[in-house]
Amino acid sequence: MPLLFGVPRSLVHCSVGNVIKGFRRCLALKVGDNATLTKRITKEDVTQFGNLTGDTNPIHVDDLYVRENTKFERCVVHGAFLNSLVSSVIGTQLPGPGTVVVKQELNFPSPCYVGEEVEVSVKVKDVRKIITVEFLCRSNSGNVVLWGIAKLVHQPVSKK
Amino acid sequence: MPLLFGVPRSLVHCSVGNVIKGFRRCLALKVGDNATLTKRITKEDVTQFGNLTGDTNPIHVDDLYVRENTKFERCVVHGAFLNSLVSSVIGTQLPGPGTVVVKQELNFPSPCYVGEEVEVSVKVKDVRKIITVEFLCRSNSGNVVLWGIAKLVHQPVSKK
Repeated sequence: MPLLFGVPRSLVHCSVGNVIKGFRRCLALKVGDNATLTKRITKEDVTQFGNLTGDTNPIHVDDLYVRENTKFERCVVHGAFLNSLVSSVIGTQLPGPGTVVVKQELNFPSPCYVGEEVEVSVKVKDVRKIITVEFLCRSNSGNVVLWGIAKLVHQPVSKK
Repeated sequence: MPLLFGVPRSLVHCSVGNVIKGFRRCLALKVGDNATLTKRITKEDVTQFGNLTGDTNPIHVDDLYVRENTKFERCVVHGAFLNSLVSSVIGTQLPGPGTVVVKQELNFPSPCYVGEEVEVSVKVKDVRKIITVEFLCRSNSGNVVLWGIAKLVHQPVSKK
């Protein structure tokens, strides 16, 4: 498989000064740093997400289907939507703008029902060339609906 | 951590007939079965995705920021968006409606640039109580932009 998001290539293309600048930026992050986001996921959010991504699996949008055919109480939020909220915390707060995800492990232990509020937490576990964070999404019912780890590269490595 | 998406609980709650029905449905899937989706990801798609999920990381939406601060040629598609397309194939084609993802591993080896067309392929690797699929997204530039595996439960287990 190809290299991780071209990381080695980026280092080759950077001057030493820029590499150091990138490393300094990473070093500003500390193990244990954390950030959270809270969002109530509405039926409209889920419908929009389904239309945008093409994932119109009725389990997400059809209450009658869910009641008649599954063990769930009502429509469940797309797991990929929950993961998008994790990426939102990573890409806007911690490490923040310029970050890209290179690897991720996701676990969906319980369903997140449409209409529930979720709290998404991201915590720094390791800071090297590749930054490791762990994340957890808990719904207001108290269930963990997503947890996992992500490996990140914190752009920008300035070209200037 | 909690159990995988309540799978053991679902089996406890089902009658034997329903369990067998669920198993038959799984058995209709064969190792090697595959499905694909092709989509050109436009700037509008990425903007909508950012607004919906809150992931407004400028690496996805700000060409000037990308040119001045990163090693990328232009704005890159959210990795979480690419994964949403994988979920779309899983939830609408293979195994199809009623499927939920319980676990996933994602690798993003190369950037997917906004405006590129991606082909998303999903292939069945193992069919048991938990179904295993592997997936791969390739952009029209020829790069693999996402690959990984997913563990799935194929709902519905009919209540009737």
